[in-house]
Amino acid sequence: MTTDPLVIFTPSGKRGRFPAGTPVLTAARQLGVDLDSVCGGRGICSKCQVTPSYGEFPKHGVTVEKDALNEFNAVEQRYDDKRGLKPGRRLGCQATVQGDIVIDVPAESQVHKQVVRKAATARAITMDPATRLFLVDVEEPDMHEPTGDFERLKTALKAQWNIEGLTAPLPVLSRLQPALRKGDWQVTVAVHHDHTGSAPRLIDVWPGYYEGGLYGLAIDLGSTTIAAHLCDLVTGEVKASSGIMNPQIRFGEDLMSRVSYVMMNPGGDVEMTGAVRDALNELAKSIAEEAEIDPRAVVEATFVCNPVMHHLLLGIDPVELGQAPFALATSSSVSLDAAELDLSALNAAARVYILPCIAGHVGADAAAVALSEEPQKSDDLMLVVDVGTNAEILLGNKDRVLACSSPTGPAFEGAQISSGQRAAPGAIERVEIDPATKEPRFRVIGSDLWSDEDGFDAATATTGITGICGSGIIEAVAEMRMAGLLDPSGLIGSAEQTGTPRCEPEGRTHSYLIFDGSADGGPRITVTQGDIRAIQLAKSALYAGARLLMDQMGVDTVDRVVLAGAFGAHISPKHAMVLGMIPDAPLDKVTSAGNAAGTGARIALCSLAARSEIETVVGNIHKVETAVEPKFQEHFVNANAIPHATDPFPELAQVVSLPAVGFNTGDAGGGRRRRRR
Amino acid sequence: MTTDPLVIFTPSGKRGRFPAGTPVLTAARQLGVDLDSVCGGRGICSKCQVTPSYGEFPKHGVTVEKDALNEFNAVEQRYDDKRGLKPGRRLGCQATVQGDIVIDVPAESQVHKQVVRKAATARAITMDPATRLFLVDVEEPDMHEPTGDFERLKTALKAQWNIEGLTAPLPVLSRLQPALRKGDWQVTVAVHHDHTGSAPRLIDVWPGYYEGGLYGLAIDLGSTTIAAHLCDLVTGEVKASSGIMNPQIRFGEDLMSRVSYVMMNPGGDVEMTGAVRDALNELAKSIAEEAEIDPRAVVEATFVCNPVMHHLLLGIDPVELGQAPFALATSSSVSLDAAELDLSALNAAARVYILPCIAGHVGADAAAVALSEEPQKSDDLMLVVDVGTNAEILLGNKDRVLACSSPTGPAFEGAQISSGQRAAPGAIERVEIDPATKEPRFRVIGSDLWSDEDGFDAATATTGITGICGSGIIEAVAEMRMAGLLDPSGLIGSAEQTGTPRCEPEGRTHSYLIFDGSADGGPRITVTQGDIRAIQLAKSALYAGARLLMDQMGVDTVDRVVLAGAFGAHISPKHAMVLGMIPDAPLDKVTSAGNAAGTGARIALCSLAARSEIETVVGNIHKVETAVEPKFQEHFVNANAIPHATDPFPELAQVVSLPAVGFNTGDAGGGRRRRRR
Repeated sequence: MTTDPLVIFTPSGKRGRFPAGTPVLTAARQLGVDLDSVCGGRGICSKCQVTPSYGEFPKHGVTVEKDALNEFNAVEQRYDDKRGLKPGRRLGCQATVQGDIVIDVPAESQVHKQVVRKAATARAITMDPATRLFLVDVEEPDMHEPTGDFERLKTALKAQWNIEGLTAPLPVLSRLQPALRKGDWQVTVAVHHDHTGSAPRLIDVWPGYYEGGLYGLAIDLGSTTIAAHLCDLVTGEVKASSGIMNPQIRFGEDLMSRVSYVMMNPGGDVEMTGAVRDALNELAKSIAEEAEIDPRAVVEATFVCNPVMHHLLLGIDPVELGQAPFALATSSSVSLDAAELDLSALNAAARVYILPCIAGHVGADAAAVALSEEPQKSDDLMLVVDVGTNAEILLGNKDRVLACSSPTGPAFEGAQISSGQRAAPGAIERVEIDPATKEPRFRVIGSDLWSDEDGFDAATATTGITGICGSGIIEAVAEMRMAGLLDPSGLIGSAEQTGTPRCEPEGRTHSYLIFDGSADGGPRITVTQGDIRAIQLAKSALYAGARLLMDQMGVDTVDRVVLAGAFGAHISPKHAMVLGMIPDAPLDKVTSAGNAAGTGARIALCSLAARSEIETVVGNIHKVETAVEPKFQEHFVNANAIPHATDPFPELAQVVSLPAVGFNTGDAGGGRRRRRR
Repeated sequence: MTTDPLVIFTPSGKRGRFPAGTPVLTAARQLGVDLDSVCGGRGICSKCQVTPSYGEFPKHGVTVEKDALNEFNAVEQRYDDKRGLKPGRRLGCQATVQGDIVIDVPAESQVHKQVVRKAATARAITMDPATRLFLVDVEEPDMHEPTGDFERLKTALKAQWNIEGLTAPLPVLSRLQPALRKGDWQVTVAVHHDHTGSAPRLIDVWPGYYEGGLYGLAIDLGSTTIAAHLCDLVTGEVKASSGIMNPQIRFGEDLMSRVSYVMMNPGGDVEMTGAVRDALNELAKSIAEEAEIDPRAVVEATFVCNPVMHHLLLGIDPVELGQAPFALATSSSVSLDAAELDLSALNAAARVYILPCIAGHVGADAAAVALSEEPQKSDDLMLVVDVGTNAEILLGNKDRVLACSSPTGPAFEGAQISSGQRAAPGAIERVEIDPATKEPRFRVIGSDLWSDEDGFDAATATTGITGICGSGIIEAVAEMRMAGLLDPSGLIGSAEQTGTPRCEPEGRTHSYLIFDGSADGGPRITVTQGDIRAIQLAKSALYAGARLLMDQMGVDTVDRVVLAGAFGAHISPKHAMVLGMIPDAPLDKVTSAGNAAGTGARIALCSLAARSEIETVVGNIHKVETAVEPKFQEHFVNANAIPHATDPFPELAQVVSLPAVGFNTGDAGGGRRRRRR
């Protein structure tokens, strides 16, 4: 009595017996093993590469003989000659089972492969793209069977790939007939599935076997900048990243001024929608050029953005978002054709997915942060802060997640700061102040050298030293506090009180001189008392928002803090905590997630499962409205002190001891305060 | 023991018992009685009008007392004062059941009302529109429940109208917020369902109760003319009809010359697509103006057209339709947004439905004829001929339907005829020839008088007598045959042979003079030997196509003949049969269906059930390809004689006796034929 050979796939462990001669790809499909194939076993696409293993496998209970597969065949040899096959590899559609065999499916041959992100703390993305390629042979037309070419393509896709109910938008339908004839009735189609059970869509069609790949854009549409990653939809690899300024800035620097612009200028929303769509086309074009990819191969885009940008992108008047109760026109995720957004720089049938919004102030960008940082899966209680013009704050763990937004204003981005500037070459981004000498040293964007290191002048000669950016001002203020130049109430001491001539009088207050370039016609970069007040307002709003969520959660401390946002990546946890931007926590539990919103966009681009997931997660996030919570004002006032008037910072105290200075007794501060009240 | 009152609805006969106080509308809904309501029982829309009946009803076994309903209430009184309620009518939402009652639902209060078409033979249309209005109250937004306005509208539609899974395109989404606020959270929405189970779509939204109605365009997109009916989607009423020339004529008079234009001029298809879409917008605009209807209320359009026009409308290169095997890009019905066809003159979210094509030569226009004339439901064997530049022919009954198209050429439309012209004022449309005197009389378009009647000259003074149109040439040729001026082979006799000087020599052949306007500088209108040959070619093609279908069906005769097409409406059955355009049949069984394709478009516009039906029907129609059937040529040759070389015409013979003349023995005809061979 003979039994069929046993086929065991790793890493899945799936196994089954198949008649001798069965192609490995066929066995994999029947067992539901995740083994990719675009050409469906025609020996063309090489996506189904596998690695057979030989010898004793006590774990699996088999011995694999040398002849457990057929010999390397002509199709494989041709591919190997042309493209090169890694040693030990076989094509799953050509290798046939002859005896018991153990077959490993390498990651790159899996459709649902995991893509490990660079950052050490970050989760992997499991590829589950909406749009995939399929090679298909279509019946030729026949005068006696007068069905259309599209209907015969549908029949073929059903028979060869089990894809049913395909629909085709006009731009693709118009490409179908020439492609079928040029490909001699064999075409590669890009088919889009979604996660809601809608009918699959034909996105494009190419004659014969198409090797150009499929790509998508993950777009973080911010109020100030628009950043995009161009990703390979098969490997998940980021092929290029690029950003441009949001041209809506000319209508208003921040969101509320853009909403005001619409209220004052009828049709202003249409203008702004046109401007941002034009910019997106420009960005898409340049990023595809940079990556040397045919824009037609860009078949998807995902968007994350705040609610105002969300509405302006969609062409919806954002005026309701400017006034209570801040009603969104739509809060759910939005799936639509790129053409509906005039995104002509992508494939003509490209699809767009916009992540859901959490609330009128907490947008798809915050949802993307949740998708990337996953507080909803955390055992620890996580505080995730996306720092920008508005701060979006998430607090939660696997039991419950709360969200709010807090109006920090633009100080953290270097705006409303006397020597402030955007983060650009020449901007001071890091500051240290010696507690003994009170002398500063600093680094500017564009150089890795500190200002007291050799070669600094040469390294910064081209950019100059032009101002101080968001992370720079945060470090400067925190360092001033640690060096005893600033008291807990936020007053800068005089030269006499602090013992350094860098504390200069400025009107009735004082400022601290970081850099004097005036001898060479450059700027004098100081931190003024006004700068301190601006930072205090911003950090109080941020802290109060976090504190409000902690109240709602019924906790006084959090286990972990994640700083997100492009800016969050550059904030030093220690300085943020000295400033009291964030609640006290062990410093090693305060981490940066970089552009978590952008990462969320990229995850949603690569994975339909992630889209389903974030839609569910957003539905379960409880939103807290800072504007109507009476406690917010109280938290805000208490958070004005540096680090805080009432909350203890025991974890911070273990690392940093803050000088117990007080400059309010002197005439400058005290006198000023009396007169103003 | 008391029992609840019995409520009996007529004409449905549905009945049930309901607690006293139940509104009639509620009872109707629970019993599934077809009683319309847009406002959902708020006493606003008045769509739910009913007529209660009182007295003895032995048939129903009830006696209805005077107080079987509540008294006419204030809401009804207000409506009656404002708009007037017909005597005896009540509003179904206000009238409550108090005792046993018989309630009639008048036709205009039914959603699925039957609309009787004008023509006596025509079927009624049962209204089943895709887009309907619903009044809905939406929850106000709340800062603590931050769902979007659209999501709350969805919730309300589910609760109040059981409409689930609504989607909204961007143009409507952008109108939602202002409408909700202006309507104080009550809006009327237009919701589109389709017959395929796709998610319902929000088409438009108006503040409060919207009374503007919903309309649709049924468009017959022909090669030469584009005709449209603007229909009320509630009543089915045609509010306006209009037509314009197809501007593609400048690229080629007939379909094949347009296909050639594309082949010779790359991008020519794009040009033609743009031209026809522009014309459609112009037509839509003018017809809405004529009917004094806001274009925004036009929420749907249906199209019927031949395959070449179908592809050019969709923006698909029609080149494959110009060569065997005449493959359609798509043969199924097409549902899409009007915006995808650039139809900006309709509602921004309007939907379009294009009927399915039967084959590469037998288009959606033929499908529409089948929907209108229903050979597939006939007990009789019906031959339906849609006469135009190409003739589409359907033959069948409820067992089986066959279809083909036959290249008749444009002769039937007056083209390629020496004095031919399009059907327009001044064109001769009817002709009679006295068999004794051989003298003609005729009528021209624009006057009801015959040319020998008093006042004819005055009546035609403005238009003049300018040429002869399609129906005119058919009558002229048939009358010439009946008067013995033309022999069965199609030769015109000389003056000597026929005894009338109106048979004039023209080269080696003869022509027959119908009208001589040369004294007044007008035309001499004659029927030349060349005209006879052109008509013979056309009618042979038509007859051969019909005969081929009869072969396939295994029959020698048909029970009924229906002439469709705008032109078919003007063909006299007797003359058509004398000419041998159509197979022999009892003359009273030859009828005209007018523009059956246009009617089919209108049926599909008013009824989703009709869309499902025609899709099924088209799938069952067996298409016969004339171009490759060897018998076609033989049928064509035999059909050249007038009426026919071999087929007997016994029914015709009972009505008309055709003179047994023969002019081939003379030198003119015979000599000519010898020399040309």
